[in-house]
Amino acid sequence: MESFRVCLVQMRVEQDREANFVRARTEIEGAASEGARLVVLPEMFSCPYDVESFPRYAEELPAGPSADFLSGIAATLGIYLVGGSIPEAAGGKIYNTSTLWGPTGELLLTHRKVHLFDVDIPGGISFHESACLSAGNQVSVVQTELGRIGLAICFDLRFPEQFRAMALAGADLLVLPGAFNTTTGPAHWESLNRARAIENTCYLAACSPAPHPAGGYPAWGHSMIVDPWGEILDQCGREAARVTAVLDPSRLEELRHALPVLRQRRPDVYGL
Amino acid sequence: MESFRVCLVQMRVEQDREANFVRARTEIEGAASEGARLVVLPEMFSCPYDVESFPRYAEELPAGPSADFLSGIAATLGIYLVGGSIPEAAGGKIYNTSTLWGPTGELLLTHRKVHLFDVDIPGGISFHESACLSAGNQVSVVQTELGRIGLAICFDLRFPEQFRAMALAGADLLVLPGAFNTTTGPAHWESLNRARAIENTCYLAACSPAPHPAGGYPAWGHSMIVDPWGEILDQCGREAARVTAVLDPSRLEELRHALPVLRQRRPDVYGL
Repeated sequence: MESFRVCLVQMRVEQDREANFVRARTEIEGAASEGARLVVLPEMFSCPYDVESFPRYAEELPAGPSADFLSGIAATLGIYLVGGSIPEAAGGKIYNTSTLWGPTGELLLTHRKVHLFDVDIPGGISFHESACLSAGNQVSVVQTELGRIGLAICFDLRFPEQFRAMALAGADLLVLPGAFNTTTGPAHWESLNRARAIENTCYLAACSPAPHPAGGYPAWGHSMIVDPWGEILDQCGREAARVTAVLDPSRLEELRHALPVLRQRRPDVYGL
Repeated sequence: MESFRVCLVQMRVEQDREANFVRARTEIEGAASEGARLVVLPEMFSCPYDVESFPRYAEELPAGPSADFLSGIAATLGIYLVGGSIPEAAGGKIYNTSTLWGPTGELLLTHRKVHLFDVDIPGGISFHESACLSAGNQVSVVQTELGRIGLAICFDLRFPEQFRAMALAGADLLVLPGAFNTTTGPAHWESLNRARAIENTCYLAACSPAPHPAGGYPAWGHSMIVDPWGEILDQCGREAARVTAVLDPSRLEELRHALPVLRQRRPDVYGL
Protein backbone atom coordinates (compact mmCIF):
# COMPACT_ATOMS: atom_id res chain seq x y z
CA MET A 1 0.00 0.00 0.00
CA GLU A 2 1.07 3.60 -0.73
CA SER A 3 0.43 6.66 1.38
CA PHE A 4 -2.42 8.56 -0.28
CA ARG A 5 -5.39 10.83 0.39
CA VAL A 6 -8.91 9.40 0.10
CA CYS A 7 -12.03 11.57 -0.06
CA LEU A 8 -15.67 10.50 0.45
CA VAL A 9 -18.36 12.57 -1.22
CA GLN A 10 -21.50 12.56 0.94
CA MET A 11 -23.92 14.09 -1.60
CA ARG A 12 -27.65 14.53 -2.05
CA VAL A 13 -29.20 12.45 -4.81
CA GLU A 14 -31.94 13.98 -7.01
CA GLN A 15 -34.52 12.44 -9.33
CA ASP A 16 -32.61 14.01 -12.24
CA ARG A 17 -29.65 11.82 -13.13
CA GLU A 18 -27.85 14.60 -15.02
CA ALA A 19 -28.15 16.86 -11.98
CA ASN A 20 -26.51 14.12 -9.92
CA PHE A 21 -23.63 13.96 -12.40
CA VAL A 22 -23.18 17.74 -12.19
CA ARG A 23 -23.11 17.67 -8.39
CA ALA A 24 -20.79 14.65 -8.29
CA ARG A 25 -18.44 16.27 -10.82
CA THR A 26 -18.12 19.43 -8.73
CA GLU A 27 -17.30 17.43 -5.60
CA ILE A 28 -14.91 15.02 -7.31
CA GLU A 29 -13.02 17.94 -8.90
CA GLY A 30 -12.85 19.61 -5.49
CA ALA A 31 -11.52 16.44 -3.89
CA ALA A 32 -8.92 15.94 -6.61
CA SER A 33 -7.79 19.56 -6.33
CA GLU A 34 -7.19 18.90 -2.63
CA GLY A 35 -4.96 15.98 -3.48
CA ALA A 36 -7.29 12.99 -3.25
CA ARG A 37 -6.05 10.06 -5.32
CA LEU A 38 -9.12 7.94 -4.48
CA VAL A 39 -12.61 9.46 -4.40
CA VAL A 40 -15.67 7.52 -3.21
CA LEU A 41 -19.30 8.26 -4.08
CA PRO A 42 -22.30 6.95 -2.08
CA GLU A 43 -24.58 3.97 -2.70
CA MET A 44 -27.02 4.77 -5.56
CA PHE A 45 -25.27 8.05 -6.35
CA SER A 46 -27.22 8.73 -9.55
CA CYS A 47 -30.59 7.10 -8.74
CA PRO A 48 -33.00 7.71 -5.84
CA TYR A 49 -32.81 4.93 -3.26
CA ASP A 50 -36.21 3.29 -3.66
CA VAL A 51 -37.38 0.06 -5.28
CA GLU A 52 -39.55 1.89 -7.83
CA SER A 53 -36.54 3.76 -9.18
CA PHE A 54 -34.13 0.85 -9.53
CA PRO A 55 -35.73 -0.64 -12.69
CA ARG A 56 -36.25 2.79 -14.27
CA TYR A 57 -32.65 3.88 -13.72
CA ALA A 58 -31.01 0.51 -14.40
CA GLU A 59 -27.96 0.70 -16.68
CA GLU A 60 -25.54 -1.76 -18.17
CA LEU A 61 -21.86 -2.04 -17.41
CA PRO A 62 -19.18 -1.24 -18.50
CA ALA A 63 -21.03 1.32 -20.66
CA GLY A 64 -24.10 3.43 -19.84
CA PRO A 65 -24.73 6.97 -18.58
CA SER A 66 -23.24 6.48 -15.11
CA ALA A 67 -20.37 4.30 -16.31
CA ASP A 68 -19.48 6.82 -19.02
CA PHE A 69 -19.56 9.64 -16.49
CA LEU A 70 -17.39 7.77 -13.97
CA SER A 71 -14.86 6.53 -16.50
CA GLY A 72 -14.59 9.95 -18.10
CA ILE A 73 -13.98 11.93 -14.94
CA ALA A 74 -11.54 9.35 -13.52
CA ALA A 75 -9.49 9.61 -16.71
CA THR A 76 -9.73 13.39 -16.94
CA LEU A 77 -8.50 13.84 -13.36
CA GLY A 78 -6.20 10.79 -13.32
CA ILE A 79 -7.71 9.45 -10.09
CA TYR A 80 -9.13 6.24 -8.71
CA LEU A 81 -12.90 6.52 -8.32
CA VAL A 82 -15.42 4.28 -6.55
CA GLY A 83 -18.66 5.03 -8.35
CA GLY A 84 -20.80 4.47 -5.28
CA SER A 85 -23.32 2.05 -6.68
CA ILE A 86 -25.89 2.00 -9.48
CA PRO A 87 -28.75 -0.31 -10.41
CA GLU A 88 -26.98 -2.55 -12.94
CA ALA A 89 -29.01 -4.30 -15.64
CA ALA A 90 -27.50 -7.62 -16.72
CA GLY A 91 -29.03 -10.79 -18.16
CA GLY A 92 -32.60 -9.70 -17.41
CA LYS A 93 -31.76 -9.01 -13.74
CA ILE A 94 -30.93 -5.89 -11.76
CA TYR A 95 -28.07 -5.73 -9.23
CA ASN A 96 -26.94 -3.08 -6.76
CA THR A 97 -23.42 -2.72 -8.15
CA SER A 98 -20.36 -0.76 -7.09
CA THR A 99 -17.52 0.02 -9.49
CA LEU A 100 -13.87 1.01 -9.13
CA TRP A 101 -12.35 3.00 -11.99
CA GLY A 102 -8.64 3.62 -12.52
CA PRO A 103 -6.78 6.78 -13.53
CA THR A 104 -6.94 6.00 -17.23
CA GLY A 105 -10.70 5.43 -17.01
CA GLU A 106 -10.54 1.65 -17.00
CA LEU A 107 -13.02 -0.43 -14.97
CA LEU A 108 -10.86 -2.26 -12.38
CA LEU A 109 -13.48 -3.98 -10.21
CA THR A 110 -17.23 -4.43 -9.85
CA HIS A 111 -19.05 -5.60 -6.74
CA ARG A 112 -22.67 -6.71 -6.80
CA LYS A 113 -24.22 -6.35 -3.32
CA VAL A 114 -24.25 -9.85 -1.84
CA HIS A 115 -26.70 -9.30 1.03
CA LEU A 116 -29.89 -7.53 -0.04
CA PHE A 117 -31.53 -5.08 2.35
CA ASP A 118 -34.70 -6.87 3.45
CA VAL A 119 -35.85 -5.69 6.87
CA ASP A 120 -39.08 -4.98 8.78
CA ILE A 121 -38.37 -2.99 11.92
CA PRO A 122 -41.54 -2.26 13.91
CA GLY A 123 -41.89 1.49 14.39
CA GLY A 124 -38.85 1.97 12.14
CA ILE A 125 -37.99 1.16 8.56
CA SER A 126 -39.27 -1.51 6.18
CA PHE A 127 -37.46 -2.07 2.91
CA HIS A 128 -37.27 -4.99 0.49
CA GLU A 129 -34.52 -4.75 -2.10
CA SER A 130 -35.18 -8.33 -3.12
CA ALA A 131 -38.54 -7.22 -4.54
CA CYS A 132 -36.63 -6.05 -7.61
CA LEU A 133 -32.89 -6.70 -7.11
CA SER A 134 -30.81 -9.86 -7.45
CA ALA A 135 -27.88 -10.65 -5.17
CA GLY A 136 -24.22 -10.84 -6.15
CA ASN A 137 -22.14 -13.97 -5.72
CA GLN A 138 -18.59 -12.82 -5.06
CA VAL A 139 -16.21 -11.19 -2.64
CA SER A 140 -14.55 -8.29 -4.46
CA VAL A 141 -10.90 -7.27 -4.05
CA VAL A 142 -8.39 -5.91 -6.58
CA GLN A 143 -4.73 -4.90 -6.54
CA THR A 144 -4.06 -1.27 -7.48
CA GLU A 145 -0.97 0.92 -7.29
CA LEU A 146 -2.51 2.44 -4.14
CA GLY A 147 -2.81 -0.95 -2.47
CA ARG A 148 -5.38 -3.76 -2.44
CA ILE A 149 -8.91 -2.39 -2.35
CA GLY A 150 -12.04 -4.34 -1.40
CA LEU A 151 -15.61 -3.30 -2.18
CA ALA A 152 -18.80 -4.08 -0.27
CA ILE A 153 -22.17 -2.32 -0.14
CA CYS A 154 -24.25 -1.21 2.84
CA PHE A 155 -26.13 -4.27 4.25
CA ASP A 156 -23.04 -6.39 3.49
CA LEU A 157 -21.58 -4.60 6.56
CA ARG A 158 -23.68 -6.83 8.85
CA PHE A 159 -21.82 -9.94 7.68
CA PRO A 160 -18.32 -10.13 9.14
CA GLU A 161 -17.64 -13.19 7.01
CA GLN A 162 -17.55 -11.10 3.84
CA PHE A 163 -15.16 -8.54 5.33
CA ARG A 164 -12.91 -11.28 6.70
CA ALA A 165 -12.81 -12.81 3.23
CA MET A 166 -11.73 -9.45 1.78
CA ALA A 167 -8.99 -9.10 4.40
CA LEU A 168 -7.76 -12.64 3.76
CA ALA A 169 -7.66 -11.78 0.05
CA GLY A 170 -5.15 -9.11 1.04
CA ALA A 171 -7.30 -5.99 1.22
CA ASP A 172 -5.59 -2.97 2.80
CA LEU A 173 -8.64 -0.72 2.43
CA LEU A 174 -12.30 -1.76 2.64
CA VAL A 175 -14.60 0.64 0.77
CA LEU A 176 -18.30 0.65 1.58
CA PRO A 177 -20.81 2.79 -0.27
CA GLY A 178 -23.74 2.47 2.11
CA ALA A 179 -27.02 4.15 3.01
CA PHE A 180 -27.97 3.25 6.55
CA ASN A 181 -31.05 5.14 7.78
CA THR A 182 -32.33 7.03 10.80
CA THR A 183 -33.51 3.78 12.43
CA THR A 184 -30.42 1.61 12.01
CA GLY A 185 -27.80 4.32 11.55
CA PRO A 186 -27.62 5.77 15.08
CA ALA A 187 -27.63 2.27 16.57
CA HIS A 188 -25.32 0.32 14.26
CA TRP A 189 -23.36 2.35 11.68
CA GLU A 190 -20.36 3.41 13.79
CA SER A 191 -20.00 0.21 15.81
CA LEU A 192 -20.06 -2.02 12.75
CA ASN A 193 -17.73 0.15 10.67
CA ARG A 194 -15.22 0.42 13.47
CA ALA A 195 -15.43 -3.29 14.30
CA ARG A 196 -14.77 -4.29 10.66
CA ALA A 197 -11.63 -2.11 10.63
CA ILE A 198 -10.41 -3.36 14.02
CA GLU A 199 -11.05 -7.08 13.59
CA ASN A 200 -9.45 -7.11 10.12
CA THR A 201 -6.68 -4.54 10.80
CA CYS A 202 -7.72 -2.69 7.64
CA TYR A 203 -8.48 0.88 6.71
CA LEU A 204 -12.19 1.39 6.04
CA ALA A 205 -13.98 4.13 4.09
CA ALA A 206 -17.79 4.20 4.32
CA CYS A 207 -19.65 6.71 2.12
CA SER A 208 -23.37 7.50 2.58
CA PRO A 209 -25.61 9.81 0.61
CA ALA A 210 -26.96 12.88 2.41
CA PRO A 211 -30.73 12.83 2.90
CA HIS A 212 -32.79 14.91 0.47
CA PRO A 213 -34.65 17.76 2.18
CA ALA A 214 -37.75 17.00 0.05
CA GLY A 215 -38.05 13.56 1.67
CA GLY A 216 -37.51 10.04 0.38
CA TYR A 217 -35.13 7.56 1.98
CA PRO A 218 -33.94 8.92 5.36
CA ALA A 219 -30.20 8.34 4.86
CA TRP A 220 -28.20 8.49 8.09
CA GLY A 221 -25.13 10.04 6.47
CA HIS A 222 -22.16 10.05 8.87
CA SER A 223 -19.69 8.97 6.21
CA MET A 224 -16.43 8.06 7.89
CA ILE A 225 -12.84 6.97 7.38
CA VAL A 226 -11.57 4.53 10.04
CA ASP A 227 -7.98 3.45 10.61
CA PRO A 228 -6.96 -0.15 11.42
CA TRP A 229 -6.95 0.69 15.15
CA GLY A 230 -10.63 1.69 14.89
CA GLU A 231 -9.96 5.41 15.19
CA ILE A 232 -12.27 7.62 13.13
CA LEU A 233 -9.92 9.82 11.09
CA ASP A 234 -12.70 11.98 9.68
CA GLN A 235 -16.48 11.93 9.76
CA CYS A 236 -19.43 14.20 8.98
CA GLY A 237 -23.05 14.47 10.12
CA ARG A 238 -26.15 14.02 7.97
CA GLU A 239 -25.62 17.02 5.67
CA ALA A 240 -23.75 17.01 2.37
CA ALA A 241 -20.00 17.11 3.01
CA ARG A 242 -16.63 15.80 1.95
CA VAL A 243 -14.75 13.55 4.38
CA THR A 244 -11.02 13.08 3.84
CA ALA A 245 -7.90 11.55 5.35
CA VAL A 246 -4.44 10.35 4.39
CA LEU A 247 -3.95 6.59 4.69
CA ASP A 248 -0.55 5.53 5.99
CA PRO A 249 0.97 2.17 5.06
CA SER A 250 3.42 2.27 7.96
CA ARG A 251 0.47 2.54 10.39
CA LEU A 252 -1.13 -0.48 8.74
CA GLU A 253 2.09 -2.49 8.94
CA GLU A 254 2.72 -1.49 12.57
CA LEU A 255 -0.76 -2.54 13.68
CA ARG A 256 -0.68 -5.81 11.79
CA HIS A 257 2.53 -6.64 13.58
CA ALA A 258 1.12 -5.53 16.95
CA LEU A 259 -2.19 -7.41 16.58
CA PRO A 260 -1.60 -10.27 14.16
CA VAL A 261 -5.24 -11.43 14.21
CA LEU A 262 -5.30 -12.35 10.53
CA ARG A 263 -2.67 -15.00 11.30
CA GLN A 264 -4.24 -16.09 14.62
CA ARG A 265 -7.55 -17.31 13.17
CA ARG A 266 -8.65 -20.87 13.97
CA PRO A 267 -10.74 -22.04 11.01
CA ASP A 268 -10.28 -25.60 12.32
CA VAL A 269 -12.52 -24.59 15.24
CA TYR A 270 -15.28 -22.45 13.75
CA GLY A 271 -17.04 -25.15 11.73
CA LEU A 272 -18.57 -22.55 9.40
CA MET B 1 -35.11 -18.05 26.30
CA GLU B 2 -36.75 -16.91 29.54
CA SER B 3 -36.89 -13.39 30.95
CA PHE B 4 -34.28 -13.18 33.69
CA ARG B 5 -31.84 -10.86 35.45
CA VAL B 6 -28.12 -11.23 34.78
CA CYS B 7 -25.44 -9.62 36.95
CA LEU B 8 -21.75 -9.11 36.14
CA VAL B 9 -19.31 -8.88 39.04
CA GLN B 10 -16.45 -6.55 38.12
CA MET B 11 -14.13 -7.34 41.05
CA ARG B 12 -10.52 -6.79 42.03
CA VAL B 13 -8.35 -9.90 42.03
CA GLU B 14 -5.74 -10.37 44.79
CA GLN B 15 -2.72 -12.64 45.08
CA ASP B 16 -4.58 -14.52 47.83
CA ARG B 17 -7.00 -17.00 46.26
CA GLU B 18 -9.09 -17.33 49.42
CA ALA B 19 -9.48 -13.56 49.59
CA ASN B 20 -10.79 -13.67 46.03
CA PHE B 21 -13.34 -16.31 47.02
CA VAL B 22 -14.49 -14.17 49.95
CA ARG B 23 -14.91 -11.11 47.74
CA ALA B 24 -16.65 -13.08 45.00
CA ARG B 25 -19.00 -14.70 47.52
CA THR B 26 -20.09 -11.32 48.88
CA GLU B 27 -20.82 -10.01 45.40
CA ILE B 28 -22.55 -13.16 44.17
CA GLU B 29 -24.77 -13.20 47.26
CA GLY B 30 -25.57 -9.54 46.70
CA ALA B 31 -26.45 -10.18 43.06
CA ALA B 32 -28.65 -13.15 43.94
CA SER B 33 -30.44 -11.17 46.62
CA GLU B 34 -31.27 -8.59 43.93
CA GLY B 35 -32.85 -11.29 41.81
CA ALA B 36 -30.04 -12.32 39.47
CA ARG B 37 -30.51 -15.83 38.12
CA LEU B 38 -27.21 -15.73 36.21
CA VAL B 39 -24.07 -14.21 37.74
CA VAL B 40 -20.85 -13.74 35.77
CA LEU B 41 -17.34 -13.39 37.22
CA PRO B 42 -14.36 -11.93 35.31
CA GLU B 43 -11.54 -13.62 33.43
CA MET B 44 -9.04 -15.09 35.93
CA PHE B 45 -11.25 -14.28 38.92
CA SER B 46 -9.15 -16.18 41.47
CA CYS B 47 -5.64 -15.78 40.01
CA PRO B 48 -3.67 -12.64 39.09
CA TYR B 49 -3.60 -12.08 35.34
CA ASP B 50 0.06 -12.70 34.55
CA VAL B 51 1.93 -15.56 32.92
CA GLU B 52 3.99 -16.25 36.06
CA SER B 53 0.83 -16.88 38.08
CA PHE B 54 -0.96 -19.20 35.67
CA PRO B 55 1.18 -22.31 36.38
CA ARG B 56 1.23 -21.62 40.14
CA TYR B 57 -2.55 -21.25 40.39
CA ALA B 58 -3.49 -23.93 37.84
CA GLU B 59 -6.29 -26.25 39.02
CA GLU B 60 -8.06 -29.25 37.60
CA LEU B 61 -11.71 -29.45 36.59
CA PRO B 62 -14.34 -30.40 37.60
CA ALA B 63 -12.80 -30.41 41.09
CA GLY B 64 -10.27 -28.06 42.66
CA PRO B 65 -10.40 -24.98 44.89
CA SER B 66 -12.10 -22.66 42.39
CA ALA B 67 -14.40 -25.35 41.01
CA ASP B 68 -15.47 -26.38 44.51
CA PHE B 69 -16.14 -22.76 45.42
CA LEU B 70 -18.17 -22.11 42.25
CA SER B 71 -20.16 -25.32 42.40
CA GLY B 72 -20.90 -24.81 46.07
CA ILE B 73 -22.17 -21.26 45.86
CA ALA B 74 -24.21 -21.92 42.71
CA ALA B 75 -25.96 -24.77 44.52
CA THR B 76 -26.39 -22.86 47.77
CA LEU B 77 -28.01 -19.92 46.01
CA GLY B 78 -29.72 -21.95 43.26
CA ILE B 79 -28.31 -19.77 40.49
CA TYR B 80 -26.47 -20.13 37.22
CA LEU B 81 -22.88 -18.97 37.58
CA VAL B 82 -20.19 -18.28 35.00
CA GLY B 83 -16.97 -18.76 36.93
CA GLY B 84 -15.07 -16.17 34.96
CA SER B 85 -12.03 -18.16 34.01
CA ILE B 86 -9.24 -20.03 35.77
CA PRO B 87 -5.94 -21.54 34.70
CA GLU B 88 -7.03 -25.15 34.13
CA ALA B 89 -4.46 -27.94 34.42
CA ALA B 90 -5.23 -30.90 32.16
CA GLY B 91 -3.02 -33.50 30.53
CA GLY B 92 0.19 -31.67 31.33
CA LYS B 93 -1.08 -28.45 29.75
CA ILE B 94 -2.68 -25.27 31.09
CA TYR B 95 -5.72 -23.64 29.53
CA ASN B 96 -7.55 -20.37 30.19
CA THR B 97 -10.92 -21.96 30.94
CA SER B 98 -14.37 -20.58 31.65
CA THR B 99 -17.06 -22.65 33.36
CA LEU B 100 -20.85 -22.46 33.62
CA TRP B 101 -22.42 -23.99 36.73
CA GLY B 102 -26.11 -24.78 37.17
CA PRO B 103 -28.41 -24.21 40.16
CA THR B 104 -27.74 -27.64 41.63
CA GLY B 105 -23.98 -27.07 41.38
CA GLU B 106 -23.45 -29.16 38.27
CA LEU B 107 -20.86 -28.17 35.66
CA LEU B 108 -22.87 -27.46 32.50
CA LEU B 109 -20.21 -26.14 30.12
CA THR B 110 -16.51 -25.41 29.90
CA HIS B 111 -14.81 -23.18 27.36
CA ARG B 112 -11.08 -23.16 26.82
CA LYS B 113 -9.95 -19.85 25.30
CA VAL B 114 -9.43 -20.52 21.61
CA HIS B 115 -7.41 -17.43 20.67
CA LEU B 116 -4.51 -16.77 23.02
CA PHE B 117 -3.57 -13.18 23.82
CA ASP B 118 -0.26 -12.67 22.05
CA VAL B 119 0.33 -9.03 21.20
CA ASP B 120 3.17 -6.50 21.01
CA ILE B 121 1.83 -2.98 20.79
CA PRO B 122 4.62 -0.36 20.56
CA GLY B 123 4.22 2.12 23.40
CA GLY B 124 1.40 -0.01 24.77
CA ILE B 125 1.02 -3.53 26.06
CA SER B 126 2.99 -6.69 25.35
CA PHE B 127 1.62 -10.01 26.56
CA HIS B 128 2.20 -13.60 25.52
CA GLU B 129 -0.29 -16.10 26.91
CA SER B 130 1.10 -18.76 24.61
CA ALA B 131 4.32 -18.72 26.65
CA CYS B 132 2.55 -20.94 29.15
CA LEU B 133 -1.04 -21.56 28.00
CA SER B 134 -2.47 -23.94 25.40
CA ALA B 135 -5.41 -23.04 23.17
CA GLY B 136 -8.85 -24.62 23.22
CA ASN B 137 -10.36 -26.32 20.22
CA GLN B 138 -14.09 -25.81 20.44
CA VAL B 139 -16.96 -23.38 20.18
CA SER B 140 -18.94 -23.59 23.43
CA VAL B 141 -22.74 -23.36 23.68
CA VAL B 142 -25.20 -25.14 25.98
CA GLN B 143 -28.97 -25.21 26.44
CA THR B 144 -30.20 -24.16 29.89
CA GLU B 145 -33.63 -23.35 31.26
CA LEU B 146 -32.70 -19.67 30.88
CA GLY B 147 -31.95 -20.10 27.18
CA ARG B 148 -28.93 -21.13 25.11
CA ILE B 149 -25.73 -19.67 26.52
CA GLY B 150 -22.41 -19.39 24.69
CA LEU B 151 -19.04 -18.80 26.33
CA ALA B 152 -15.96 -17.09 24.92
CA ILE B 153 -12.99 -15.42 26.61
CA CYS B 154 -11.42 -12.00 26.03
CA PHE B 155 -9.19 -12.17 22.91
CA ASP B 156 -11.76 -14.49 21.31
CA LEU B 157 -13.80 -11.28 20.89
CA ARG B 158 -11.57 -10.24 17.98
CA PHE B 159 -12.70 -13.23 15.93
CA PRO B 160 -16.24 -12.76 14.59
CA GLU B 161 -16.15 -16.30 13.22
CA GLN B 162 -16.31 -17.78 16.73
CA PHE B 163 -19.26 -15.60 17.75
CA ARG B 164 -21.07 -16.37 14.51
CA ALA B 165 -20.57 -20.07 15.21
CA MET B 166 -22.10 -19.62 18.68
CA ALA B 167 -25.10 -17.78 17.22
CA LEU B 168 -25.59 -20.46 14.57
CA ALA B 169 -25.49 -23.05 17.36
CA GLY B 170 -28.52 -21.24 18.75
CA ALA B 171 -27.01 -18.99 21.41
CA ASP B 172 -29.37 -16.36 22.81
CA LEU B 173 -26.77 -14.90 25.16
CA LEU B 174 -23.02 -14.62 24.56
CA VAL B 175 -21.01 -14.43 27.80
CA LEU B 176 -17.47 -13.10 27.68
CA PRO B 177 -15.23 -12.98 30.73
CA GLY B 178 -12.54 -10.67 29.40
CA ALA B 179 -9.73 -8.43 30.60
CA PHE B 180 -8.96 -5.84 27.95
CA ASN B 181 -6.43 -3.25 29.08
CA THR B 182 -5.82 0.48 29.03
CA THR B 183 -4.20 0.26 25.57
CA THR B 184 -6.80 -1.82 23.74
CA GLY B 185 -9.81 -1.20 25.97
CA PRO B 186 -10.59 2.44 25.14
CA ALA B 187 -10.08 1.77 21.43
CA HIS B 188 -11.76 -1.61 20.92
CA TRP B 189 -13.83 -2.98 23.83
CA GLU B 190 -17.13 -1.21 23.24
CA SER B 191 -17.09 -1.36 19.43
CA LEU B 192 -16.35 -5.07 19.36
CA ASN B 193 -18.83 -6.02 22.10
CA ARG B 194 -21.62 -4.03 20.47
CA ALA B 195 -20.80 -5.34 17.00
CA ARG B 196 -20.92 -8.98 18.17
CA ALA B 197 -24.38 -8.40 19.67
CA ILE B 198 -25.68 -6.52 16.61
CA GLU B 199 -24.34 -8.79 13.87
CA ASN B 200 -25.56 -11.93 15.65
CA THR B 201 -28.80 -10.48 17.10
CA CYS B 202 -27.82 -11.88 20.52
CA TYR B 203 -27.64 -10.55 24.04
CA LEU B 204 -24.01 -10.14 25.17
CA ALA B 205 -22.58 -9.92 28.71
CA ALA B 206 -18.88 -9.00 29.00
CA CYS B 207 -17.31 -9.09 32.48
CA SER B 208 -13.88 -7.61 33.22
CA PRO B 209 -11.89 -7.57 36.45
CA ALA B 210 -11.30 -4.19 38.09
CA PRO B 211 -7.64 -3.12 38.13
CA HIS B 212 -5.80 -3.60 41.39
CA PRO B 213 -4.64 -0.31 42.93
CA ALA B 214 -1.28 -1.89 43.81
CA GLY B 215 -0.52 -2.40 40.11
CA GLY B 216 -0.29 -5.44 37.90
CA TYR B 217 -2.31 -5.93 34.75
CA PRO B 218 -4.05 -2.63 33.82
CA ALA B 219 -7.55 -4.04 33.28
CA TRP B 220 -9.84 -1.68 31.39
CA GLY B 221 -12.97 -2.74 33.26
CA HIS B 222 -16.11 -1.30 31.64
CA SER B 223 -18.09 -4.53 32.03
CA MET B 224 -21.26 -4.23 30.00
CA ILE B 225 -24.52 -5.89 29.05
CA VAL B 226 -25.59 -5.26 25.44
CA ASP B 227 -28.96 -6.04 23.88
CA PRO B 228 -29.37 -7.53 20.37
CA TRP B 229 -29.90 -4.03 18.94
CA GLY B 230 -26.47 -3.03 20.26
CA GLU B 231 -27.82 -0.87 23.07
CA ILE B 232 -25.76 -0.93 26.26
CA LEU B 233 -28.26 -1.82 29.00
CA ASP B 234 -25.79 -1.31 31.84
CA GLN B 235 -22.09 -0.58 32.11
CA CYS B 236 -19.55 0.55 34.69
CA GLY B 237 -16.18 2.29 34.62
CA ARG B 238 -12.85 0.83 35.77
CA GLU B 239 -13.69 0.51 39.48
CA ALA B 240 -15.21 -2.55 41.17
CA ALA B 241 -18.96 -2.65 40.54
CA ARG B 242 -21.92 -4.85 39.73
CA VAL B 243 -23.56 -4.42 36.32
CA THR B 244 -27.07 -5.79 35.89
CA ALA B 245 -30.00 -5.95 33.48
CA VAL B 246 -33.08 -8.02 32.70
CA LEU B 247 -32.90 -9.91 29.41
CA ASP B 248 -36.16 -10.03 27.48
CA PRO B 249 -36.94 -12.91 25.11
CA SER B 250 -39.65 -10.92 23.31
CA ARG B 251 -37.04 -8.26 22.44
CA LEU B 252 -34.77 -10.96 21.06
CA GLU B 253 -37.57 -12.49 18.99
CA GLU B 254 -38.72 -9.10 17.71
CA LEU B 255 -35.23 -8.11 16.55
CA ARG B 256 -34.53 -11.45 14.93
CA HIS B 257 -37.70 -11.03 12.91
CA ALA B 258 -36.84 -7.41 12.07
CA LEU B 259 -33.23 -8.13 11.07
CA PRO B 260 -33.05 -11.78 10.02
CA VAL B 261 -29.30 -11.70 9.39
CA LEU B 262 -28.72 -15.21 10.74
CA ARG B 263 -30.87 -16.51 7.86
CA GLN B 264 -29.47 -14.10 5.25
CA ARG B 265 -25.88 -15.35 5.38
CA ARG B 266 -24.21 -16.42 2.11
CA PRO B 267 -21.68 -19.11 3.04
CA ASP B 268 -21.61 -20.06 -0.67
CA VAL B 269 -19.88 -16.71 -1.28
CA TYR B 270 -17.43 -16.27 1.58
CA GLY B 271 -15.01 -19.05 0.67
CA LEU B 272 -13.78 -19.27 4.27
